[in-house]
This record gives sequence, structure tokens and C-alpha cells, in this order.
Amino acid sequence: MDVDIGNALASVASPGVSRASLERLDERVADAHERIERGMANREHGYEALNLPERTDPDEIRAAVDPVADAEALLTVGIGGSSLGAATIANALEGVEPRSTGSRTESDGTETVFLDNVDPAWVSRKLASLPLEETAINVVSRSGTTAETLANFLVVRDAFESAGVDWTERTIVTTGDSGPLRDLADRHDLPSLKVPDGVPGRFSALSAVGMVAAAVCGHDLEALLEGAAAERESLSGSLFECPAYAYGATTYALDGRGAGTNAVMPYAESLETFAEWFAQLWAESLGKDELGQTPVRALGATDQHSQLQLYRAGPRDKLVTFLTVDDGPDRSIPETDVDDLAYLGDSTLGELLAAEFEATEASLAAAGRPNVRVELEAVDEYELGGLLYGMEAACVLAGELYRVNTFEQPAVEWAKKATRGLLGGGEFEEAEAVAEKTELRVER
Amino acid sequence: MDVDIGNALASVASPGVSRASLERLDERVADAHERIERGMANREHGYEALNLPERTDPDEIRAAVDPVADAEALLTVGIGGSSLGAATIANALEGVEPRSTGSRTESDGTETVFLDNVDPAWVSRKLASLPLEETAINVVSRSGTTAETLANFLVVRDAFESAGVDWTERTIVTTGDSGPLRDLADRHDLPSLKVPDGVPGRFSALSAVGMVAAAVCGHDLEALLEGAAAERESLSGSLFECPAYAYGATTYALDGRGAGTNAVMPYAESLETFAEWFAQLWAESLGKDELGQTPVRALGATDQHSQLQLYRAGPRDKLVTFLTVDDGPDRSIPETDVDDLAYLGDSTLGELLAAEFEATEASLAAAGRPNVRVELEAVDEYELGGLLYGMEAACVLAGELYRVNTFEQPAVEWAKKATRGLLGGGEFEEAEAVAEKTELRVER
Repeated sequence: MDVDIGNALASVASPGVSRASLERLDERVADAHERIERGMANREHGYEALNLPERTDPDEIRAAVDPVADAEALLTVGIGGSSLGAATIANALEGVEPRSTGSRTESDGTETVFLDNVDPAWVSRKLASLPLEETAINVVSRSGTTAETLANFLVVRDAFESAGVDWTERTIVTTGDSGPLRDLADRHDLPSLKVPDGVPGRFSALSAVGMVAAAVCGHDLEALLEGAAAERESLSGSLFECPAYAYGATTYALDGRGAGTNAVMPYAESLETFAEWFAQLWAESLGKDELGQTPVRALGATDQHSQLQLYRAGPRDKLVTFLTVDDGPDRSIPETDVDDLAYLGDSTLGELLAAEFEATEASLAAAGRPNVRVELEAVDEYELGGLLYGMEAACVLAGELYRVNTFEQPAVEWAKKATRGLLGGGEFEEAEAVAEKTELRVER
Repeated sequence: MDVDIGNALASVASPGVSRASLERLDERVADAHERIERGMANREHGYEALNLPERTDPDEIRAAVDPVADAEALLTVGIGGSSLGAATIANALEGVEPRSTGSRTESDGTETVFLDNVDPAWVSRKLASLPLEETAINVVSRSGTTAETLANFLVVRDAFESAGVDWTERTIVTTGDSGPLRDLADRHDLPSLKVPDGVPGRFSALSAVGMVAAAVCGHDLEALLEGAAAERESLSGSLFECPAYAYGATTYALDGRGAGTNAVMPYAESLETFAEWFAQLWAESLGKDELGQTPVRALGATDQHSQLQLYRAGPRDKLVTFLTVDDGPDRSIPETDVDDLAYLGDSTLGELLAAEFEATEASLAAAGRPNVRVELEAVDEYELGGLLYGMEAACVLAGELYRVNTFEQPAVEWAKKATRGLLGGGEFEEAEAVAEKTELRVER
């Protein structure tokens, strides 16, 4: 990815960051980079995620999915970091031809469904929509105990059994070294992959966690890792030379100057899930100690007709991160004899989308609202690998600058215990606190 | 809808609002309510939206869609307020049985697709996925000139013609009294409906703009309007007696105390689009004069594994609005002999989801983070009508309290002119400003 932080400068925007401030910040970036390189070299918890481009073995993943490589549909059962990376890759690459092979063949058209919630009506509808006898199951949970994932997996198994389909022939497990899912994989001799040690879920897209789905869909795993490796090569001690650090440092600097919200707005439908993945990465890594930007998922051009009014004229507490794609398929807009629309007939949808982006970027700059442009050459395996790795590196850098513990998520535990207690899964004081709710009800 | 603002009280949360403050604010609510009632009585711009439950004629809408009532799929071409209301209703009610008739028949299963972006690859994929000869077109633009909508409509017409399907037999137009779309409807004698005067797009869900799709899908239009009318009846001069005003006043008060972000988190997949609709309503109505809360779309339980860390331990700048549903279909979790998961086997997915909600709500309260609960009895036409109307009334009330012009969106115009200029649709100084971009590029 390339990054343009021109519209975040104090000469353009308020809040904005001056060149002099960026140069001073660059000294801290150099120190942070040293810390990151050391963490990677020592394979420390979290930092190890940045080693995935060299650690992940595509052959191992392909071997594990081989029994279901011809599946018409893939049902991934996971939540949070066990789902969003896979969904980001699968949704971005739907219909994209592989890059490294030079083949003109599209990816194999596998339908991908992500069971990442326990809403009963929705789960039932998803299951009913799938041809179970042609569907593979990809169940992902590091601990093997995640309540939503395991509940859904029990439901899915049951649905397969009810339909007379042997789920043990169609299930791939990705989990840790031990736990209920690991036991289950052993008992039924299921193909299984390991969630890599030292890699938190939200940083695991470039491991088996994110790549099993890509493998079943026939995407080019090597190109994903090559794109990430190229981004890894660009990590350096200066934000002015490294797109990932430029992004991480600029967002940190703007947050400190009042831009507590980071609206991520891809101008590509295929990257809508990426914005969700980014939101988890950013929120769960940096949202602690009363620090951290709030990520907001947006989409161009659609949200120009929804959020732009606020971004341009609301409180000066936002950074907008645009994500643009240089090349892709296009489609002509047919000509029309309606005068007021004639100008559209000389264009393509892609040109319209590009003009909408340029106009929106300029409209924020003209109103002095900070924004950053992240550019991809295309939406393909190589560029996507670079984007995911680059944003992870940006996040790790930001975590160093904030001085937070980027790789933990302690605030999530309270609700997990309370949930378990409420369902009779043990004694937890958190569950008792639920009953003490303060009410002030207003009813119709 | 019912509302519980107990967890927004200063006795629970920081920021929070004291009962004494709420009582003082209630005097301003009484004044605002008078203003709103006067605006409704005089059918003033914007306030007229709150009259829709009595103004919208379901028979007229059903008559217009009659020629395509049996369509297998409905393609809605619109953007922003011309799409989100229809999508919210259609997505919420997918698979829901009508309420007022007491029938056990499900809605008719029409597939709904919303073409609300101009991404060329995505538009082509959507079109290719539809059985065009069985697809109806619902094109919506008040002005009839919205670039994205008209460009897409030209593309859609062309695709139908290429497939040998007569689009003039399958298209319903919803637009203003004049403009290119109105001319086109007249020229081809298309069934057409009018975007009601005085009703901004984001407030038009309960007019033809939002209800054509519901009608084609066989949903109960009367029940939608009855639910809205019941909410309208509840509008009163006190926030302690009116759920909509309780919500609007509480969010306003919390924003003033530092909660500049409002994360809307339905615990129902079918209400995910509602969160998008709410985000437009809130952002475009209140985001002006450097005021306005930033709406964030979240989803329970999924985002517990993504955003909860930030909500509970990040900056104290957020309100979380939970949206819960009392009744709905459920599904048992099968029993398992795995010890650590045995507790799940005594439960249902619905019970798990409810426990996750209660745990998350309590976990925020325990950390002193303000949150509000909005409760629906079910997801059906009646409750949904009440929810949409209630949130619109809440927004209008908040607009009065902020003293902003709730019903305009002037900051969107700049980018529209620039886009048009960039595509050669006329001379606009905004388009020239685009070329003056300040660059600070960091490349790999």
C-alpha cells in the first residue's frame, strides 16, 4: 500500500499535524521500530504476528483443505478474530482472478458463509440456504471454548446429521494445542491446523485462521504472503519511508490533537469487510487505559449520502481514512437523451466512483477536515496481503506510541464470565452483578 | 419501543446525567414538543415526516406495485435516504410472518437487492446474479438527477435490454413532481409514486420511498403504519412519558457531557441495516455547526469480540445504545459430552444471545460506561414501524435541543458539484479545487 498524508498536515486541516511535529515524532518511530524488530526477532507474544509472511506454510493449509477443495460452499464458524480475517480475504477476492499464475480463470466460485453470531433465526436461515451435502465446515477457535462458536458448531453438526450428511468428512478444525476442539479433531480424525502461538486473533489473518477459507476458494496463498512480505520489507526506522508507519504515526498524532474517531472509507464494495477487520484491529489493540481512536466503518460512495454531512460539518474530532483502488473491472454508463444526465453517458461507473472519491476528499480538505489516502494498485491477493500486513504494522507502531499493551484485550473477560455464569456454566460474581441493573424505564 | 435510560444516570456512569439535570432538561423538552407539534400541524418542511403514519396510503403503493407483485426478485436503485429505509424494512422482515392478519404464512420470499453504490465490479456481479426476466426494478430519487442512482439505472435498463427483457413492464418509479425520472415515467407510462413533499430522504422510510419494497415482498403495510401511529400517540411534553423523547434527550445530554459517539448495537442480525439507517438519520440531521454525535454501527453479540474492549476501557466519549428483541424464533443447542461445553447443551441460541446482551450491558455499567436499552417486543411490521418513527421523533427532538437545522444537509453539496464538474457536467469551481491537493506521499 501507498499512503498520502498530505491532507492531515496542519497547513490543510484542523486538527492537523505540522511537518515539524512529524519530524519530532519520527524519533519516537525509530525507537518503536527497534522495539518491534526486537520483538519479532525474539518471537515475543504479538510481535510474532509480523513474522507470519515467513512462518505460514501454504502447502500445509492446502493439504488440510484438500478433502473439501471441491466444496460448493464453505461455512466458517468463528467470531471476532477467528472470522474477520477470513471474511475479509474471501469477500475482497470474490470473483478476482489469481495474480501470480497469470491465469485468466476466476477463482472457483465457492460460496462463503460466516457464522459469526448466535442469532437463532439468522443461523437457521443461513443453514437452510446451504446445500449441506456440498458444504465444508471451517471451525475456528484458539481456546476451543468460545461460547458462540462452540454453540454454533454443535448446531451445525446437528443440522448435518439431521440431513444425513457426515460432518466428519467435511470439517476442518483450526484451534490451539489443547481444548475441546482439539480433542474433537483428534477423536474424529479431522484435518486440523494450529492457531500459531504468539499471534492474537485479530492479527491472524495471514495464518491458517484467515487462509483456510482462501484456500478452499482457490485463491493464491503464496501471493497473499508475498504481498505481506513486501510490506514487511518496507518497515524502517522512519515514517517518511514506510507507508505502514506513516499511517500509524499520523493517526496517533491526530488522535492526540483531537481526532478521536477514525472513519475508514474504502471506495470499493469488496473492501467493506476490510473496514470491519480494521475496526477490530484498531479498537481491540489500542482501546485501553482510556486511550485509543474509535474506528468507524464507512463505504464510498454510498456514505457520501449518509455520513459526509457529519464528517464535513460536525465536530472536529474525526480523521477520515480513504482507501482507493487504482485498477479494476469497469462498466460503461449507457448514453441517454435526457439533457440533465447526458454528462454521465460519456463516463464509466469506475470514473464516476473515482470522481466521487476525489470530490469527497477535496471537500473535506476544503473544510479543513483531516484525511489520509491509502492506495492499492488493485484488489488482488498480493495487494490485499500488503494491506493487511501494513495495517497490522501500523497498529503495532501506534500501540508503541500510545504505550499500551497492544496484544491483550482484558476488558472482554468480564462479559465472558458473566455470560457463562448466567447460563449455569459456573459460579461467577460477574453474573450476580447483572441482576443489580439500575432502571429508569420509559414505556409507550 | 420502550426505553431504559437507567445506565445513563450519573449514579451509574461517567459521563452520565443526573436525575435533577434530566428534570431541568424536561422543561426544554416541553418547549421542543410544542415546536414539533406546531411544525406537524402546519406541515412544515421536515416536521411533515412525523405526519406520515396518517398521510401514507398503502392502497396507492400496492396498486403501483401490482404489475410486479409476483416478481421473484426486486432490484432497488437508490442511495442514502432513497435506499436505507427500504433496505431496513426489507432486511428486518425477511422471513417474518405478517402480524395484523394473524396468518401463519411467511412473507413471499422475494429476494431484495439494493444497488446503492457505483462500484462497477459489484454492480456487474449483482446484475449477473439476478433472474432478470423475473426481476422488478424500484428506482428512487426525489430530484431524478442523483448521479449514482441515475447512472446505475441507465446500466440496469441496458442490462435488461441486452437480456431481451422489457424493463418498461417491470419498473416502478418513485420521484418528485418533476425532473428526468418523472419525465421518463411519463414517457414510458411507468407506474409511479411521489416522494412526499416536506419529507427529507432520511425521514421517508414510512412513505412510498421505503414501502414499495415492503409491498413487493408482501409485508403488512398497515401494520407498519399502525406501529408508527402508536409511537406518534406517545409523543408528549415530557421525556419521562415518551420513549422517543427519552432517547433523544438522553443522547443530547450525554453528548454535552462528553459522549460524542453513539454506538448502536442491535442484538439481532435482522436489525443490522437498521443501525445503518440510524447512522444516516443521526449523522445527516445533527452533524452540523460543529455539533452532533457520531453514530457507530455495531452488532451484538459479534462485536463483543471486536469493539467491546474499546467501549469498556477506551476513552469515556461513548454512549452504547443496545437494541433488544423480546420474542422471536429460537433454536436449541444440542447436548455434548465435552465437559467444558456441557452448560451450553441446556440452553438455546436465543438464551445464549440474551445472556450475552445482559452480560455486555452489565459489563459497561460496571465500568461506569453509559448505555441505553431500546426494547422491541418482536421484529415484525408493527414494532418496526414504531422503532423507525420513534427514532425519527428522537432525532427531531434532539435537533431542537441542539438548535440545528435538522432537515437540511448543506455540507453534501460541495462534493456533488465537484463530482459533476470532474465528469464534464458543467463548470464548477469545486472541481478545480480538487487539483490543488496537498501531497505528502509515502510509498513502499
